[in-house]
Amino acid sequence: HNADTRKCAEWVKNKFEQAGLENSQILETGGQPIVYADYLHAEGHPTVLVYGHYDVQSPDPLDEWKSAPFEPEVRDGKLYARGADDNKGQFFAHLKALELLIHTDKRLPVNVKFMVEGEEEIGGVHLDSFIESHLDLLKADVCLISDSHSLSVTQPLINYGLRGLVYTELTLSALDKDVHSGEFGGNVPNVAIELANIISKLKDPVTQKVLVDGFYDNVRQVSHEEMHQLEHSPFTERFVLEETGASRLIGEEGFLPPVRMGARPTLDVNGMSSGYILEGSKTIIPSKAMAKISLRIVPNQTSAEIAEKFTNFVRKIVPRYVNYIDVKILSTGEPILMDISSHFFKHAETVLEEVFGNKPVYDLSGGSIPVTATLKKLLGIDSILMGFGLPDDGLHSPNEKMDVEMFYKGIKSSTLFFRSLGL
Amino acid sequence: HNADTRKCAEWVKNKFEQAGLENSQILETGGQPIVYADYLHAEGHPTVLVYGHYDVQSPDPLDEWKSAPFEPEVRDGKLYARGADDNKGQFFAHLKALELLIHTDKRLPVNVKFMVEGEEEIGGVHLDSFIESHLDLLKADVCLISDSHSLSVTQPLINYGLRGLVYTELTLSALDKDVHSGEFGGNVPNVAIELANIISKLKDPVTQKVLVDGFYDNVRQVSHEEMHQLEHSPFTERFVLEETGASRLIGEEGFLPPVRMGARPTLDVNGMSSGYILEGSKTIIPSKAMAKISLRIVPNQTSAEIAEKFTNFVRKIVPRYVNYIDVKILSTGEPILMDISSHFFKHAETVLEEVFGNKPVYDLSGGSIPVTATLKKLLGIDSILMGFGLPDDGLHSPNEKMDVEMFYKGIKSSTLFFRSLGL
Repeated sequence: HNADTRKCAEWVKNKFEQAGLENSQILETGGQPIVYADYLHAEGHPTVLVYGHYDVQSPDPLDEWKSAPFEPEVRDGKLYARGADDNKGQFFAHLKALELLIHTDKRLPVNVKFMVEGEEEIGGVHLDSFIESHLDLLKADVCLISDSHSLSVTQPLINYGLRGLVYTELTLSALDKDVHSGEFGGNVPNVAIELANIISKLKDPVTQKVLVDGFYDNVRQVSHEEMHQLEHSPFTERFVLEETGASRLIGEEGFLPPVRMGARPTLDVNGMSSGYILEGSKTIIPSKAMAKISLRIVPNQTSAEIAEKFTNFVRKIVPRYVNYIDVKILSTGEPILMDISSHFFKHAETVLEEVFGNKPVYDLSGGSIPVTATLKKLLGIDSILMGFGLPDDGLHSPNEKMDVEMFYKGIKSSTLFFRSLGL
Repeated sequence: HNADTRKCAEWVKNKFEQAGLENSQILETGGQPIVYADYLHAEGHPTVLVYGHYDVQSPDPLDEWKSAPFEPEVRDGKLYARGADDNKGQFFAHLKALELLIHTDKRLPVNVKFMVEGEEEIGGVHLDSFIESHLDLLKADVCLISDSHSLSVTQPLINYGLRGLVYTELTLSALDKDVHSGEFGGNVPNVAIELANIISKLKDPVTQKVLVDGFYDNVRQVSHEEMHQLEHSPFTERFVLEETGASRLIGEEGFLPPVRMGARPTLDVNGMSSGYILEGSKTIIPSKAMAKISLRIVPNQTSAEIAEKFTNFVRKIVPRYVNYIDVKILSTGEPILMDISSHFFKHAETVLEEVFGNKPVYDLSGGSIPVTATLKKLLGIDSILMGFGLPDDGLHSPNEKMDVEMFYKGIKSSTLFFRSLGL
């Protein structure tokens, strides 16, 4: 879809120009391009870097969509489309806020740099090196990111930490080709079974602890006070059950759901495949098996450390008669924890309370926004993660949506935030 | 491919007519049709039912074929095509033998009924009920089937027993939809992992014993003499390693390769699938997972017994938080053992020795030809399994082939067999 993402980048660039932003341009990265624009006329005032991404997750399974994923449809006050929440709808709210300020006030009260990338969903392959080679262009005092969600239409949320990610692809082979299961069944290795054996050794089925050697060595100990606060987060058992259709929560022994989500690392199989998977039966022993396995990591684990530990563990437990084993690291992201004592966070709190009618809850996010860690490392800035999605928006799922009311609350919050920074 | 298989059935019917067979017709089964013809003018002589199948396995993975799977190509004395060996090439040898006898001798020395079905590769769904409702039409003294192989171009083989099959499809679900692995990872069940856990409990990784409760209860004990004979079968470790590319044989502890293949039951995963399996990464927890798991069974196990034991075992070990579990039995076939003391087998032995220059070896086959068990049960007849394929023909794999020399040996053997029965 390179042609489609390029078209989308052009579209964003045009919208930047229409909003009145300056210096609007498409910057090459070696992969999907980055769209950039700025407005730098508020001398003596801080510079806010706004971040978003125009790329989206694959819309499959297509047959579960009620309306076409790339033809937005509003039903019952909700806009349905792939990317409606993650992330087109959300960064667009900031763009509309800036357009409003520029066209109404004829000025912006702060300096703004707006960067929208196109590789977030594939792990931001080229983003880090792009930032590293554009430090001056991107220099700012704080970053504003809406790639998360509020708790409800009246309860805002600020994520003060994010999990990191190590996304791997494991491939095994033990035969030259698929062979007949009648002739060779009972005499040769079956890599589908071997892959299952490996996966079954990654997590304890009872305690749900990840069994990779040394996995928990560097996990940050959460203070009693923070634990208490997290445990009262609205990420409740009931919410998770309703949202996912699970009949019971399954997670790491000894921790409550919001703690497991934000402060504990975990491991999931995101996909696996071997042999014949179409309709009917094919009597083969497969020659290859593949699994996509990802690990969510928390401070002070690092992606390099966990990628190495995972790879070593898998190589240790795979039987020697498995001829071929490959562990690819498809993408990584570092975990991060923000310093919420800065005045930027105080401004965000005030603004969100005004728009939503309630003080924002501070919470840890289970997801990963790797750019936050990169910005901290390379530009030394924190990211304010104020989300205007809702928890049931169906990110990465069929029928992703964004509530129209939340979109307008996003525009309002963003407008007030920029104004408050200029006071 | 219903239109394609129907076209193939028409083609077979025309070939029957061209060969001089009578009563050539396409008989409906509710699924793929059966092609039948006969020639019944040898009063006082036995009736031979010839069986074959015109359906083939899926040709995928297509990109591994050196020539198109449905455009036969002869290279270096070998005919490459899907079905070249299994089973179009082999039943065609019998048809050519009958054509030769009818056109040259102007008579057949025996009565012949020729039945070619179109559902062998999907487990002969409608074959049993077809046979049951056509007992008079199919009544015969012995069945001749070439759906197996010789050991080499000079060493013929008669299979005196075949394994049966229970082919299942297991589906699990624990969530309503795929959900974001960042938000929910560490709190909800992951069915890809649950499926791996189930599969890892089906076979002991060290002894390779199938762990399904009571699995071995009814397995026939092989006599010391038969065991000795089987152990000297040419299904050697070296053959299996060369043929499959395995670096080591893996099979049931305490048995040699040919015994495991012919006289011991086993279990294999033929395919499995869950979540995102295309290129790149998608950070989901999958809502569904599926595995195709088949069990090869031996006398005196029955498919009904093993299907029930497997289903019960899986249901017993699956955790209760897996909302949905379904075990479909996609196809079954009974194991069989022939009475090789009959004069039909003596005739087959003599003929094969004359054509190949060596006495045939008697061996057990690891594959399944379920029709043999049905014919034994419903018509009371044994099947003579003389194969004209070779062990390296690549059944069910890309680049399936048949040696042209073996095809001619098949025609010759068949011709002599029919003649000898008429003496």
